[in-house]
Amino acid sequence: MKPMDAEQLREYGHQMVDFIADYYKNIENFPVLSQVQPGYLRQLLPDSAPTHPESLQDVLDDVQAKILPGVTHWQSPEFFAYFPSNSSVAGFLGEMLSASINMVGFSWISSPAATELEMIVLDWLAKALKLPDEFLSTGQGGGVIQGTASEAVLVVLLAARDKVLRRVGKDAIGKLVAYISDQTHSSLQKACKIGGIHPENIRVLKTNSSTQFALSPEPLSEAISQDIASGLIPFFLCATVGTTSSTAVDPLFALGKISKSNGVWFHVDAAYAGSACICPEFRHYIDGVEEADSFNMNAHKWFLTNFDCSALWVKDRSALIQSLSTNPEYLKNKASQENLVVDYKDWQIPLGRRFRSLKLWMVLRLYGLEKLQAYIRNHIELATKFEELVRLDSRFEVAAARKFSLVCFYLLPPKSNEEIGDKLNHDLLDAVNSTGKLFISHTVLSNRYVLRFAVGAPLTEERHVLAAWETLQEKASDLLMNL
Amino acid sequence: MKPMDAEQLREYGHQMVDFIADYYKNIENFPVLSQVQPGYLRQLLPDSAPTHPESLQDVLDDVQAKILPGVTHWQSPEFFAYFPSNSSVAGFLGEMLSASINMVGFSWISSPAATELEMIVLDWLAKALKLPDEFLSTGQGGGVIQGTASEAVLVVLLAARDKVLRRVGKDAIGKLVAYISDQTHSSLQKACKIGGIHPENIRVLKTNSSTQFALSPEPLSEAISQDIASGLIPFFLCATVGTTSSTAVDPLFALGKISKSNGVWFHVDAAYAGSACICPEFRHYIDGVEEADSFNMNAHKWFLTNFDCSALWVKDRSALIQSLSTNPEYLKNKASQENLVVDYKDWQIPLGRRFRSLKLWMVLRLYGLEKLQAYIRNHIELATKFEELVRLDSRFEVAAARKFSLVCFYLLPPKSNEEIGDKLNHDLLDAVNSTGKLFISHTVLSNRYVLRFAVGAPLTEERHVLAAWETLQEKASDLLMNL
Repeated sequence: MKPMDAEQLREYGHQMVDFIADYYKNIENFPVLSQVQPGYLRQLLPDSAPTHPESLQDVLDDVQAKILPGVTHWQSPEFFAYFPSNSSVAGFLGEMLSASINMVGFSWISSPAATELEMIVLDWLAKALKLPDEFLSTGQGGGVIQGTASEAVLVVLLAARDKVLRRVGKDAIGKLVAYISDQTHSSLQKACKIGGIHPENIRVLKTNSSTQFALSPEPLSEAISQDIASGLIPFFLCATVGTTSSTAVDPLFALGKISKSNGVWFHVDAAYAGSACICPEFRHYIDGVEEADSFNMNAHKWFLTNFDCSALWVKDRSALIQSLSTNPEYLKNKASQENLVVDYKDWQIPLGRRFRSLKLWMVLRLYGLEKLQAYIRNHIELATKFEELVRLDSRFEVAAARKFSLVCFYLLPPKSNEEIGDKLNHDLLDAVNSTGKLFISHTVLSNRYVLRFAVGAPLTEERHVLAAWETLQEKASDLLMNL
Repeated sequence: MKPMDAEQLREYGHQMVDFIADYYKNIENFPVLSQVQPGYLRQLLPDSAPTHPESLQDVLDDVQAKILPGVTHWQSPEFFAYFPSNSSVAGFLGEMLSASINMVGFSWISSPAATELEMIVLDWLAKALKLPDEFLSTGQGGGVIQGTASEAVLVVLLAARDKVLRRVGKDAIGKLVAYISDQTHSSLQKACKIGGIHPENIRVLKTNSSTQFALSPEPLSEAISQDIASGLIPFFLCATVGTTSSTAVDPLFALGKISKSNGVWFHVDAAYAGSACICPEFRHYIDGVEEADSFNMNAHKWFLTNFDCSALWVKDRSALIQSLSTNPEYLKNKASQENLVVDYKDWQIPLGRRFRSLKLWMVLRLYGLEKLQAYIRNHIELATKFEELVRLDSRFEVAAARKFSLVCFYLLPPKSNEEIGDKLNHDLLDAVNSTGKLFISHTVLSNRYVLRFAVGAPLTEERHVLAAWETLQEKASDLLMNL
């Protein structure tokens, strides 16, 4: 086998396409959640790399026999855990193309098409989401593809941090305060830690079921006032549209107004639910985004674009660039020096970057916005169906208002024995996941261990939702009977 | 087109394989460096995403007519700029497989095979590089795939920062000092900025041609002593094996001893040159790595593994985990809670991660170590050949000692007119790059603008090197004639 050869690539590429198509054809035959034990693979593979070449067939046989049993099948139609991670034909083709061109797009000149297509496609997506014009690349802002929402929130947090520190001096870093809710994604606290924000300066504002776990403006206002009174410096607020636990939606408009009047950077994390906002009937969930400084949605979750592709928009790209730019001699070039172009290396943590806009472009073109809307609506209808089934079974309770395609639910313990509720639901989770027939995950809401059923895999149909519910009912009956 | 369908994926996947194989077949017909002007693509594409689906053929036609002219062809055999970014048949197949499984491997449970294969394959690679056993996953250390060397250096810098701050208190962040040379990659300064290390606490130690641009131990010792005397806290040293400008090699053993005796975290960046160290005759370049706390090499540069795949090893994984772990309720699971497994989310900046070990595993298996060694040796021989050609032409000078597959060279200006040297070389760079026949880049060494010729693309053969040299000579003649 040569390192690269067009005809070998053709031959083996076709072989791999068939292997992959067969994987999808048979995907329902695998346990969704891998049932292997920790350390299983080390027993099956040699201790060191081979000296001599092995055949592709040998490797594919090992993928089948040794790797796939250890895979949790996120593309299975019976995957209902976490949030989805969509693969699609278009997204997959885009990954293939990107991997073959295999350029490193740090600067415009290192592959102009990569930078320019990214700018254009993120403008397309911003328009599909009806984001305000300030987020378009044609003004002072623009979009950029980050690897993940964690990286998106980190880069804007750094931009916000440095913007304030340029004003008040870098020794004041210990005074900067960030505001989140107890439902905000864990990546925000991690970003603070990375950026040197003191853990005690992260205000984790409490939410509860009375606001459906949304962050209320009042406690935010109060916290900001108190911090200012104590000589601290509020600098960052992260609101969420579609929280991880229960898809709660924070009130963007009210929170944004408070941010603005206090000079606080306002970031909106719509990593999961942003995709739904291409549908007119769900767009209202991001009303108020015009108040935000930055907005993020993961095309790799529920938008048919293979992982990773996290779309971030900012209104003031110069803030990002001031925090993240480097300009070593060996990367200098005329287009960059003359400020004629965007160099995305200055909008992100890494220097190198893949040609990720290709897959998003292919998704938008091969499906078109109408089909993408229909795709989202179908999942929301399936989740609505599941929610109805839960409501029809009096042994269960819906644990949080469903807004998108996630249903949080709870198996009620016997009235005489309410303290076993958490264990009961935990046991139900283990029982259904260990069947291999479906995979769901959990969270804690109002101090209760509740189950999460997230619809969103491209292959999921109504029959899969019905079958999953049947397994859940069956295992619930077993557990209740054996109490 | 359905979002996902095995038979559609098969049909369109085969079509895409042929498109890609044809791209490689014709790759020499493209100008290596894209010749488009800033903004070219916006004029060719619509303003917004289509409402209705378009055909794959339409998209592929656009890739051919609109995207490829804007691509700088890193896989071209005439790409000699920066450092290489290898694609290979094996790496490409691995990318395909990874994109199709499309799982998000944040925790072991989210796809056990992804975590376990990564541990195993990084152990394989560590053994191929003869790294000390402390870097293996079987002890307290281990390897992890980061996206890029920038991320690798950032995570270890954060681990080092927090390790010291846990001891001296977080308010001392303004006292932490990092040590690098003026040849260290720009990502180190960026990592410091991200982590809140004060810019004036980055000691950029000077190198010069007398040490072939390697960092000398003496100035490091002095700088550390002075900083300690001033009440500052030395915490991090980055040494490089194969610097970006000229592939200088810092003396690891001596630097490591100084680090160790001062409690400084010692990171070794071998992003480019690490690959060569699988050959016994080049392994000596990383002698002293046993003194390091962390070591990094980019399999995506010169190791036939498609971008991105940056291998990082640490001796003390708990330092990474203490800096980067999160433990939100919605990700809790038995295997993690019982500490039975590695959760790579705690070794990196993002939460989500792709199944990148697959492509590295396929590269190691489909080529085997002997062929990989031969691959590296061939490029080094080609670079040696190019160096000889430069030496044979008295108009040129080799500008730095060649160690691996990079040759730095300089077109000598007329003796009567030495001040035009920089411009002359800049003009030569522009002249050859605008032919489209080859792509080289530049750097500055000892205040001179010098040209970099980096061999390392999988398709590069001797004829490409000879042709590139011919173009360089021809353009040099033109320039010298028109002085």
